[in-house]
Amino acid sequence: MTERGYQLLQDTVERLLRRHATVHLRNILRKTHPADIAYLFKLLNEDSARTIFELLPNVEIAADVLSEMQPALRTQFLQQLDLNRLVEILSAMADDDAADLLSDLPEDFREQILVLMSHKDTEEVVAGLLSYPEDSAGRIMTTDYLALPETMTAQEAIQEVRTASETEMVFYVYVIDQEGRLSGVVSLRELVVATDQTPLSRIMTREVVRVTVTTDQEDAAQQVSRYNLLAMPVVDDQEILVGIITVDDIIDVLREEATEDILKMAGTSEEEISSFSVWRSVRVRLPWLFAAWLGGVIAIKIIGGFEVHFQEKIALFASLAAFIPVIMGMGGNIGTQSLSITVRGLATGRIDPKLLWRVVFKEIRVGLLLGLAYGLLLALVGWVLNKNVALGVVVGIAMCGNMTLAAVVGTFLPLLAVKLRIDPAVASGPFVTTSIDVLGVTLYFLTALLIIM
Amino acid sequence: MTERGYQLLQDTVERLLRRHATVHLRNILRKTHPADIAYLFKLLNEDSARTIFELLPNVEIAADVLSEMQPALRTQFLQQLDLNRLVEILSAMADDDAADLLSDLPEDFREQILVLMSHKDTEEVVAGLLSYPEDSAGRIMTTDYLALPETMTAQEAIQEVRTASETEMVFYVYVIDQEGRLSGVVSLRELVVATDQTPLSRIMTREVVRVTVTTDQEDAAQQVSRYNLLAMPVVDDQEILVGIITVDDIIDVLREEATEDILKMAGTSEEEISSFSVWRSVRVRLPWLFAAWLGGVIAIKIIGGFEVHFQEKIALFASLAAFIPVIMGMGGNIGTQSLSITVRGLATGRIDPKLLWRVVFKEIRVGLLLGLAYGLLLALVGWVLNKNVALGVVVGIAMCGNMTLAAVVGTFLPLLAVKLRIDPAVASGPFVTTSIDVLGVTLYFLTALLIIM
Repeated sequence: MTERGYQLLQDTVERLLRRHATVHLRNILRKTHPADIAYLFKLLNEDSARTIFELLPNVEIAADVLSEMQPALRTQFLQQLDLNRLVEILSAMADDDAADLLSDLPEDFREQILVLMSHKDTEEVVAGLLSYPEDSAGRIMTTDYLALPETMTAQEAIQEVRTASETEMVFYVYVIDQEGRLSGVVSLRELVVATDQTPLSRIMTREVVRVTVTTDQEDAAQQVSRYNLLAMPVVDDQEILVGIITVDDIIDVLREEATEDILKMAGTSEEEISSFSVWRSVRVRLPWLFAAWLGGVIAIKIIGGFEVHFQEKIALFASLAAFIPVIMGMGGNIGTQSLSITVRGLATGRIDPKLLWRVVFKEIRVGLLLGLAYGLLLALVGWVLNKNVALGVVVGIAMCGNMTLAAVVGTFLPLLAVKLRIDPAVASGPFVTTSIDVLGVTLYFLTALLIIM
Repeated sequence: MTERGYQLLQDTVERLLRRHATVHLRNILRKTHPADIAYLFKLLNEDSARTIFELLPNVEIAADVLSEMQPALRTQFLQQLDLNRLVEILSAMADDDAADLLSDLPEDFREQILVLMSHKDTEEVVAGLLSYPEDSAGRIMTTDYLALPETMTAQEAIQEVRTASETEMVFYVYVIDQEGRLSGVVSLRELVVATDQTPLSRIMTREVVRVTVTTDQEDAAQQVSRYNLLAMPVVDDQEILVGIITVDDIIDVLREEATEDILKMAGTSEEEISSFSVWRSVRVRLPWLFAAWLGGVIAIKIIGGFEVHFQEKIALFASLAAFIPVIMGMGGNIGTQSLSITVRGLATGRIDPKLLWRVVFKEIRVGLLLGLAYGLLLALVGWVLNKNVALGVVVGIAMCGNMTLAAVVGTFLPLLAVKLRIDPAVASGPFVTTSIDVLGVTLYFLTALLIIM
């Protein structure tokens, strides 16, 4: 649906809500894709959203709508729903979606729901998924898949596909041995093409790309993306098939991870992006800003320390001070560029941590060249503005040195983080800016002291 | 394959290359997934990569390997290949992959290849795809799909699926009317489940999510992701079905767009990420850094202008100068946070440009609260370090004001860019940092002038 389509839908729904035209509303909702209803909820006020949710034709649609809603909006929304209705909807939901939804809820609320769900057969599965670590393959897998024995014929397998109508998306049939271990895979297409009496063991591909329940979801996404898969089996440590991850969940993982990287580099988090709570935003941003603030206070002390040496030439010191923003700013800019390239290159696999020195060495040259260009320009400005050649030389050298240093720091820190098995995005964002600030100020006034004094 | 797996593969291949054990190498290559061979190429030196490429068992595998290679590495690699071999490989490649590969090549080289391809039947299709605008749905679609008439029965359709072995991934069968217009879609599963004599028009879903050839690839990706599709049909302006976009291409688009956003915000581009050319990096980064440099020079002039008013109290001016890095730095940091949240929120659809004022108003409060906290802390530092209450008050107020301002600028500029139909990532990165620098310096010394002088 286009943006204009949503506008139209919103207008219509709001008009009908004012008129209490529930029959008409139900008709519209029946014809609207659950993903579009979920989108509509962003545009409606809370009361209207709740009314619309009550009017959804059945629990299956309600389950689909909840699955497609933004997690932050959804968590808020759920806590106003009738608990029994919620339990019913959760039971109608795909198990991985239900687990995902529950994992965002406050713990006591979640426990309450799981207790109420305990008489439903889905509870065990959902609780099982919730037992895997956050961001693991086990958390995002579904247990809705078709696993058939090696000895079954193609014809029988097709019959199984026909009857397994509950299984949402069948595109691969997984083949298991007598112990339930994954032994092969047959695509639905290979099945249709095969002659009727062929056993699955003859048509299956034996080399199946797989992950274990504890594999990080990002690694799982990399594999699906690299091998262009539509689904990937998940096994436990005994190689027993326990679930599959489908490509639509992989897309969500990839988007989430990209968002996380961007936000972590800036020293904030996913938590902030769709919440309108000011306090949450403040709390999320506070820690990194404190690190940066501390770096800034150290810079004050450093500048104060240098100032003492300029007692006799305080006017010169004041002239030098005017260049602080441009020298610091350019260092910060080039450092952020190097950081962004390295963090994203690592995430997409285009930068190999093994090539550390090659990458760093390249950045030294890039930083040096750009530093020379802008250092030369700034030297000219310093000379012309202050009619002082020495000052021009100082600001030029400081600019060049600072830009080179910043490029190296921005590249080296994320690569070092990977070596130390720390997330490069979260580890390097704060350190890069703060260390560039502190190092930059020191370098600048040291140069000044050596050349002018 | 795991990282250790690649290490092992690389070691084995390099050892066999040294021994010229071509038979053994061919065997290994035959058993290795093309995506893994493509990955291996990143780890090998150029000569080894070329030798391995010559040894690939057949053109189909060579085509798959090229499709999976990193664009930057590939473009370089291709120009060393024998032209006739390349033409043969391209003809064996999926048309959208061939178009993608060709679009990265220098124009004259591309024309040369297209001429050589002209006697192959794929040339026309590939040239057709290349005629669509860059980053459009037409560019990434494949013309390998199954479109069947409405009147065909389920049984006949299954027969078509069986014989259409060339079509790489069939999961949906598209149904067209007599004029070739898209009229419905049937999933492979629905086809298998349906009774034999049912015509497609009876089992097809009529409401098909579709895009046109000129739709932006990012919009297409949003749709596939929102509706959890495996493939999406592409129609021309007459609603005639002309191609499909598969989910594996959508994954590539989503990764690319996320990478682009991160890099554009930092004032660089995709071009830089996988190239080892220093000059290219310098050229890509130069323009934005120039904008930032210009902003820095303006800041020099502004500080110089204020300095004149401090002639009598130049020592005080020097003390104030020591606080420039922390005040500017914190402004830059909070501005980058707001910018990252807004740009990413817009890209994932979590921030609605229609809610502009709500978003901006929230950021004003976040900036004000954080500004108050760090302003108060800095006021204390200023007071203690300089034994000067007035100076403490000045730096505190400047910090608070600057952080609030930066938060607003970082949020407002990308939202404004969207309203003006400019890419928020590329438009706001440079402007945010530069304008925060210039505004911040002005605000700081203005406060000092008003309170102390």
